[in-house]
Amino acid sequence: MEDLMESSTIRVMIDSPEKDADLIYRTQFWAPDLVIYIEIAGERTLLVSDLEVGRAKESEKVDRVVSFTPISKRLKERGVDKPNLTDITHDYLEQIGASQAPLLLPGATAAIAVERLRAHGHMVTLGEAPFFPERRKKESWEVELIAQTMKFTEEALDDARKRIRTAEERNGFLYVDGETLTSENLRTFIQLHLLKNGCAGSPPITSCGDQAALPHEIGHGPLKAGETIILDVFPRSNENFYCADTTRTLVYGIPTERVVAMHKAVADAVNIVLEGIRPGVDGKDLHQKVVDLFVDRGFETTTVDGKPQGFFHGTGHGVGLDVHEAPRISADSMILEEGDVVTVEPGLYYPGVGGVRIEELVVVEKDGCRNLCSLDWDL
Amino acid sequence: MEDLMESSTIRVMIDSPEKDADLIYRTQFWAPDLVIYIEIAGERTLLVSDLEVGRAKESEKVDRVVSFTPISKRLKERGVDKPNLTDITHDYLEQIGASQAPLLLPGATAAIAVERLRAHGHMVTLGEAPFFPERRKKESWEVELIAQTMKFTEEALDDARKRIRTAEERNGFLYVDGETLTSENLRTFIQLHLLKNGCAGSPPITSCGDQAALPHEIGHGPLKAGETIILDVFPRSNENFYCADTTRTLVYGIPTERVVAMHKAVADAVNIVLEGIRPGVDGKDLHQKVVDLFVDRGFETTTVDGKPQGFFHGTGHGVGLDVHEAPRISADSMILEEGDVVTVEPGLYYPGVGGVRIEELVVVEKDGCRNLCSLDWDL
Repeated sequence: MEDLMESSTIRVMIDSPEKDADLIYRTQFWAPDLVIYIEIAGERTLLVSDLEVGRAKESEKVDRVVSFTPISKRLKERGVDKPNLTDITHDYLEQIGASQAPLLLPGATAAIAVERLRAHGHMVTLGEAPFFPERRKKESWEVELIAQTMKFTEEALDDARKRIRTAEERNGFLYVDGETLTSENLRTFIQLHLLKNGCAGSPPITSCGDQAALPHEIGHGPLKAGETIILDVFPRSNENFYCADTTRTLVYGIPTERVVAMHKAVADAVNIVLEGIRPGVDGKDLHQKVVDLFVDRGFETTTVDGKPQGFFHGTGHGVGLDVHEAPRISADSMILEEGDVVTVEPGLYYPGVGGVRIEELVVVEKDGCRNLCSLDWDL
Repeated sequence: MEDLMESSTIRVMIDSPEKDADLIYRTQFWAPDLVIYIEIAGERTLLVSDLEVGRAKESEKVDRVVSFTPISKRLKERGVDKPNLTDITHDYLEQIGASQAPLLLPGATAAIAVERLRAHGHMVTLGEAPFFPERRKKESWEVELIAQTMKFTEEALDDARKRIRTAEERNGFLYVDGETLTSENLRTFIQLHLLKNGCAGSPPITSCGDQAALPHEIGHGPLKAGETIILDVFPRSNENFYCADTTRTLVYGIPTERVVAMHKAVADAVNIVLEGIRPGVDGKDLHQKVVDLFVDRGFETTTVDGKPQGFFHGTGHGVGLDVHEAPRISADSMILEEGDVVTVEPGLYYPGVGGVRIEELVVVEKDGCRNLCSLDWDL
């Protein structure tokens, strides 16, 4: 083991694959429970509970699977009352002769685990996020999986738009088959559509009117004619865990002039960014173009009664095994690279008027970007 | 502010409500993004991004909502390049005159955040899990919400059983409307049923045969006649976030004698635990009764080819805003208390034979326990 000890730092992750996409990235193993991952000079070991041993052994990305049980048993015999995962990690590292090697753990690791590893005498360094910077650059097979999730996402979103457009109106409210069309039942409609294609994840946004002016409000209550309806759908595949993310805004009936102008400004902003994306471009400059365009069109960003209005979120974010991951396109500097998969999603939000957001998902290629979305942007 | 500083420790949480049920418990606010929660002498402050300010202000459980933006802006003016959430936490605590007070954070907090708070000069203690021990004792309204989720869960599970039982058999495989009945499409069937009732969460287990002998294998491929099929359904309400958890095992056609004996042993084990649960009882003793019963019936727990078989998981766990929470009924000592909501789920697993698990969910009451499940256990 001396070679290993002298070689580079040992990477350790102690987390649940359900909550940590880095673990899925490295192991292609999914479980709701905590696992220990140890990577030494490229060799990958996964320590799991007895419950998971059988399944973990089927992962082709993992070189060795070890059960917690015999380690835990031995520790109890040695007087450790309730061995925890750091005790098990420490004992395993000792067994393989690596108890003195420096450890690198993700900054997101539970602080208590890091504290305990240090108490066991380990030198622990916390890695910056992302823990595997190479996760950012998508291989072509990863882009394919994201595109597949996007296909299901667009189908669901398009069906939801049809449901709105073919609804009947009575007194400003919308009805389908005699029932009120609400944010809730439209959300369920989209989720059912996604689930039939093996996609789930966080509930989509189906917000209307003033709720659409709150970018993260998922929407409650009846949808109304003449008001902006934002449909933002961002599922994760249950099979391969890759995500997609896209948004459209529409109005049933006649939109106000102000909303039409907002929609035009947002669409133009999307186009400016799509034209500007290529390797080497700074996301900060793209974001600034959006900010400038909105100001030019008279759409100011301010705070009223402590609540922001205008354009007050980033222009885009990476999408992969997480819906939100590196890189961000925002006010902070971030050079785009080939293989980045990023959203482009400027938006404008004004209480009393509504919210408009259009979101496309693109992959950065040698000479520009390829759009993974194909739905029209019609209001 | 002197009073506050002299009073007890300040509780701080820096996490996403999507990943941390403690945040939902304390704020009834849900968001996918990171937020900062500060509790001083019972007063609850939530610091959020501009995106969330509007929604956060609607929470009745939060006394004050503060936006990251003005703090972040001031920090940038002072030369902090990219203010992070710990910079914002530190600045806010300084503003309110509490920069010297000791802080208590959950042990699960990102280690990098704790490291940075300490670098800012804060005395940080990590709290043991659960961070709010009072979360364990369920109020009657919480039990009601869990019971409601359970009602939807049982309906979905029962419909899935009917789907299996009314399937046609050809060459050992099952068919519904001419299509093969698989783990995947049965899982989707259950999820669709749940979603119509506003419940989602992790995918249910619909495993068969040797896969059912791996307790956490969710199941893949066609279901087979004569083999054990485990249906373990544990959704979370999209509305109120309370979970339920229940399991049934069945066989299409004629089960083997061994499986019938396993099922009988598991059912008897459930009954023994249900009879034994009351405030003051040690979960360890209940778990031991299950272990002893299985040994008595000749069902041994061993390891074959590095894989465990027999009974190798805990007897039960708490259910609330998390599917798995305190208390556990396992080999470790844990005194049950009134208001605990816990599963009772012994199981037996033998590759080549199959897996059998029955899971009930009960609330511990003054003189025993009340079962929140009502489905029969028929094999």
